[in-house]
Amino acid sequence: MTTQKRVLVTGGAGYIGSHTVVELIENGYECVIVDNLCNSSYDSVARLEILTKHHIPFYKVDLCDHDGLEKVFQEHNIDSVIHFAGLKAVGESTQIPLTYYHNNILGTLVLLELMQKYHVEKFVFSSSATVYGDATRFPDMIPIPEECPLGPTNPYGQTKLGIENILRDLYNSQKDIWKVAILRYFNPIGAHPSGLIGEDPLGIPNNLLPYMAQVAVGRREKLYVFGNDYDSRDGTPIRDYIHVVDLAKGHIASLKYLDAIDQKTGICREWNLGSGTGSTVLEVYRAFCDASGIEIPYEITGRRAGDVLNLTAKPDRATKELKWKTELDVSIACKDLWKWATENPFGYQLNGISATFGTDEEEFDGRFVTIGSGSRFQATIANLGATLVDLKVDGQSVVLGYEKESQYLTPDTCYIGATIGRYANRIAHGKFALNGKDYQLTINNGVNANHGSIGSFHAKRFLGPILKNPTKDTFTAEYALIDNSEDSEFPGSLQVIVNYTLNVATKTLDIEYTAQVEVEATPINMTNHTYFNLNKLYGSDSIAGTEIKVISNKSIDVDENVIPTGKIVDREIATFDDSKPTVLGKEGPDYDYNFFVDATATPNQIDTRGNELKLVTTAYHPESNIKLEVSSTEPSYQVYTGDWLCAGFHPRQGFAVEPGRYVNAINQDKYKGSVILKPGETFGAKIQYKFSA
Amino acid sequence: MTTQKRVLVTGGAGYIGSHTVVELIENGYECVIVDNLCNSSYDSVARLEILTKHHIPFYKVDLCDHDGLEKVFQEHNIDSVIHFAGLKAVGESTQIPLTYYHNNILGTLVLLELMQKYHVEKFVFSSSATVYGDATRFPDMIPIPEECPLGPTNPYGQTKLGIENILRDLYNSQKDIWKVAILRYFNPIGAHPSGLIGEDPLGIPNNLLPYMAQVAVGRREKLYVFGNDYDSRDGTPIRDYIHVVDLAKGHIASLKYLDAIDQKTGICREWNLGSGTGSTVLEVYRAFCDASGIEIPYEITGRRAGDVLNLTAKPDRATKELKWKTELDVSIACKDLWKWATENPFGYQLNGISATFGTDEEEFDGRFVTIGSGSRFQATIANLGATLVDLKVDGQSVVLGYEKESQYLTPDTCYIGATIGRYANRIAHGKFALNGKDYQLTINNGVNANHGSIGSFHAKRFLGPILKNPTKDTFTAEYALIDNSEDSEFPGSLQVIVNYTLNVATKTLDIEYTAQVEVEATPINMTNHTYFNLNKLYGSDSIAGTEIKVISNKSIDVDENVIPTGKIVDREIATFDDSKPTVLGKEGPDYDYNFFVDATATPNQIDTRGNELKLVTTAYHPESNIKLEVSSTEPSYQVYTGDWLCAGFHPRQGFAVEPGRYVNAINQDKYKGSVILKPGETFGAKIQYKFSA
Repeated sequence: MTTQKRVLVTGGAGYIGSHTVVELIENGYECVIVDNLCNSSYDSVARLEILTKHHIPFYKVDLCDHDGLEKVFQEHNIDSVIHFAGLKAVGESTQIPLTYYHNNILGTLVLLELMQKYHVEKFVFSSSATVYGDATRFPDMIPIPEECPLGPTNPYGQTKLGIENILRDLYNSQKDIWKVAILRYFNPIGAHPSGLIGEDPLGIPNNLLPYMAQVAVGRREKLYVFGNDYDSRDGTPIRDYIHVVDLAKGHIASLKYLDAIDQKTGICREWNLGSGTGSTVLEVYRAFCDASGIEIPYEITGRRAGDVLNLTAKPDRATKELKWKTELDVSIACKDLWKWATENPFGYQLNGISATFGTDEEEFDGRFVTIGSGSRFQATIANLGATLVDLKVDGQSVVLGYEKESQYLTPDTCYIGATIGRYANRIAHGKFALNGKDYQLTINNGVNANHGSIGSFHAKRFLGPILKNPTKDTFTAEYALIDNSEDSEFPGSLQVIVNYTLNVATKTLDIEYTAQVEVEATPINMTNHTYFNLNKLYGSDSIAGTEIKVISNKSIDVDENVIPTGKIVDREIATFDDSKPTVLGKEGPDYDYNFFVDATATPNQIDTRGNELKLVTTAYHPESNIKLEVSSTEPSYQVYTGDWLCAGFHPRQGFAVEPGRYVNAINQDKYKGSVILKPGETFGAKIQYKFSA
Repeated sequence: MTTQKRVLVTGGAGYIGSHTVVELIENGYECVIVDNLCNSSYDSVARLEILTKHHIPFYKVDLCDHDGLEKVFQEHNIDSVIHFAGLKAVGESTQIPLTYYHNNILGTLVLLELMQKYHVEKFVFSSSATVYGDATRFPDMIPIPEECPLGPTNPYGQTKLGIENILRDLYNSQKDIWKVAILRYFNPIGAHPSGLIGEDPLGIPNNLLPYMAQVAVGRREKLYVFGNDYDSRDGTPIRDYIHVVDLAKGHIASLKYLDAIDQKTGICREWNLGSGTGSTVLEVYRAFCDASGIEIPYEITGRRAGDVLNLTAKPDRATKELKWKTELDVSIACKDLWKWATENPFGYQLNGISATFGTDEEEFDGRFVTIGSGSRFQATIANLGATLVDLKVDGQSVVLGYEKESQYLTPDTCYIGATIGRYANRIAHGKFALNGKDYQLTINNGVNANHGSIGSFHAKRFLGPILKNPTKDTFTAEYALIDNSEDSEFPGSLQVIVNYTLNVATKTLDIEYTAQVEVEATPINMTNHTYFNLNKLYGSDSIAGTEIKVISNKSIDVDENVIPTGKIVDREIATFDDSKPTVLGKEGPDYDYNFFVDATATPNQIDTRGNELKLVTTAYHPESNIKLEVSSTEPSYQVYTGDWLCAGFHPRQGFAVEPGRYVNAINQDKYKGSVILKPGETFGAKIQYKFSA
């Protein structure tokens, strides 16, 4: 296995940076992102993790912070740097020029100084066609070649030119060392076709496309077109628009170009990244209206100071040398932008979602995300184990959870709130056979293996999440886990998605599991291991007083090792009288039984996602007046009154209802089909917690 | 009295900065200097203090250090800023461009940010003709007007242009606030005619004149002339040389121009500062040989990369708008440079001189300077009181002194090592009459005023010093004090110079006092109050064992209040037997007598500087084998065995020999003439401590 090259992407949480990270990973590079998030959101990185199925180390560091940035160089073996980070609003730069110079120039200098110190000498710089200024002031400079004299007309452009000059001087000072690509962007537009990442400007957008998108989704009233009296096809100015995915690919092309240069040969060269084709404002307007199906209102107003007729790239140098050219036209860009805009009308900035950190420092990997934040029903979920950390009903917490990520990692874990996988519940003696091979899992529960044993998902950091607010009352958080076979006692590399959907109006939290394998089959059984306590406010140390009702009385009989005997039995205890619930006391009754949802079901299909949710357990506490209904697609469910609760909690401080496949199904011919996931299939399961109060 | 405008001068310890400070103070501005001293010396500031007769607050702060620089803005009411600070070696800038960009650009940004914060909005920037690059690439741009397109050809020039751009953008962002003068220097040469300040490049000089000066004084072998095949009068390139004093005056002109603009009107404008007259390399060479009287060896070598034929300023804009033009030609510049070079052949960087700080922080005002440092005879002197802090003979300290400046400021002072003034020794009842007016000093010694009473020089910070190494074995340190009448109980404003001259070969320390008054006469009597202990190594707590010999036995008789009775008496004690010295014991004999050097002298002249030094006292300690001879120009001397020593020292830990005018002379008609300094006269006195060991 060859070590992949690690690229430091500054500003990688931003618009162009995030799209470039996708292309880098698709091209076999590893990334590490540094971003101060002053004009971007960590959620773009969280989404990139799911989009690329890769963990992406992230540092919230300002490039001017030498020590903070040096830590990144110390912790990663950086091969090259793509430098996007910088303030970029032309108008703002004319108002606060010192801030622009300080941030953009110093940030770059500190970065280059650390590169020099750590012998990282490949650099791709995010410059801009702004460095040309008004190229129409020269004869024969449209389309604009790289040889066009430079002359920015605003502080933002001056910082770009200043950095270009620094790079040329740095190269000249050590010509056999530095490999520098200066990429002069024309007008990037569009979004990733996945709809997951796109441009998310804070405040009023400066650029045409984001502005139109905001008008189309109703955030702005109408589009202003600045002048229709230019000497163009329709009187509006001509610009060279380039799909952001094409632009991102230009970075890969330039990085590969630098990679291919001899080791002892330096270079510092500029390349235009543009399409070579100009579009007028009204042409782009038309393309966007067509893509969105919305006739956007617009108004022609006077020319804007500094605007010129035509700024189109001559991209021949990139075509010839980098073997790169644009492939996606304005209409595709408009289509992709519209997908992004409609699926994320408020970009990454969602009301009702907040995040804190499960670790002491701002370690973004250890993030706790709250969906429904500030509403009457909210769920907090950790990346670690895609764990339900907290669930609040009308402001009252109803589950057990910890404050810090590290508390979830104690060796005597009780799987508090965790996603359980690959295999929930017991496997007898930790043994199973699959495709003619015998497997032995580590024994971690009496004579059995329980909850996936070592390598259990509760202690793995999931990728993501993708956070969305698809309807007014609904919030979703989607996590992914790539559970490679080399990290597991189970066969096969598994890709798992855990999707939390919170409805603040109906007070329901749905948890959906889907999973796939690519090459080898694996046993699978997934559930959530939340411990509920419906009366934490008045009696947080015990579930006593909870009235619990289990819907079925059919249960799998188990022997003294808690291994199913193969028999189905009727549990002859009060709780199975559906006319009145069992009141849980301080000491008992103590349950740890696996029940059948429906004894007549044929529980052998792997994908139960489409199945109807069936109520399996209800619980109510009269003191808090909070009621819980647990439903599930799953054929069975474990009910556990927490009599062995540990790791900072008391016995019977919470109870668990764990819907899933039958206990030890992998070792029972009758049920085995329901827990073996083969390539080409999709595992599915869904659990719902519904509250009323 | 109008408050004078305070100008912050960054890089004020440097070549052009220091010359500008002189002109600022001559034009009625106050200055505060900030300099990181990375390429300059604090000694230029110390010399500026004496040259300008002003205290100049100094901060050793790097402009990139925001907090350090902010302190300056907090502690001073800054009116305007002249910004010289910056790295400036063209060749070095091509080797370490990041350092140049970081230092020059960031330093300027931090400065401007603080100016913005503290509403300081007048800025004069030290730019350079380097921003034009090769102006010969355009037709008709020689002489170079400000309108010439810019295009620096090296990182140094890029930083200057970068800062110009920042200034223009800053002005554009707040047009009614900023008043910015951008001064583009041509080739500054020469030095201040005083010979006290000049260019002091570290390492090999980059510029023609300092290089020639170093060849002339023997530090370099010969001059290299890069190319004599240009199309000029003599084949060598033409440059516009400008005397640094003219250049400094250009800053005053531009500052006054900014001062004269209406309050609510901004400006950002560039002015060339050049003579408009070009000189070839060989013309300057000839001028310097003529000025120095030395035919400097030179060699013609090939052209230097980047050099062009002619870079001469068009200075018309400055002439017209700033009413400024050069007044000093190349020959005057060469003459002044030669004076500087011969009087300071190693610039400010002298072997055998070191400095530490008498205060905890690096407060340059509280500096302790050691002359003869590292030699067999060395003296350490504080600015406070121009105090002799330490004197080492063959590595052994022979005087009492403190480690910290604050220790010299205890209320129960014993004047340890201090310069005593205005009036050493007692004035009966603190009373005297002068020009028909009666004066009453604060009584601080029994019924008398002693050693100048309150306002004594021992607690005043002197200006300077000027440190020199005029011959191989000689080091001098010259301090000045402007003792204004409003700070004194004495009449008249007094200007005092204290000059220490150390000869490491003869182990002599000469202390010379000179003083003048401008308007009103004053009583004056100055001495040094060092306590000697010739055996500190073995018996530092007592002078016991010292063999002391006082040369005269004529002494002034005093009454019970230690006031002279008017009689001269022979002191009938062993010490006055010149055949054998008196051995001092632990308890006695105790002396505190004023002796006559020569009873027949006529001690009524104010200026005794030219007088022969006469031996007054010898002292020897057999255990250390160190011998001291004290000589003086003065007519009398006090011998004191330290029986009331205080302030951290024991009685009889040191003895003092204090040459001076007669005790209470001001109140005795016979001697009064020797202690009244009138306008037009110069007071003079000299003391010598000579050691052998």
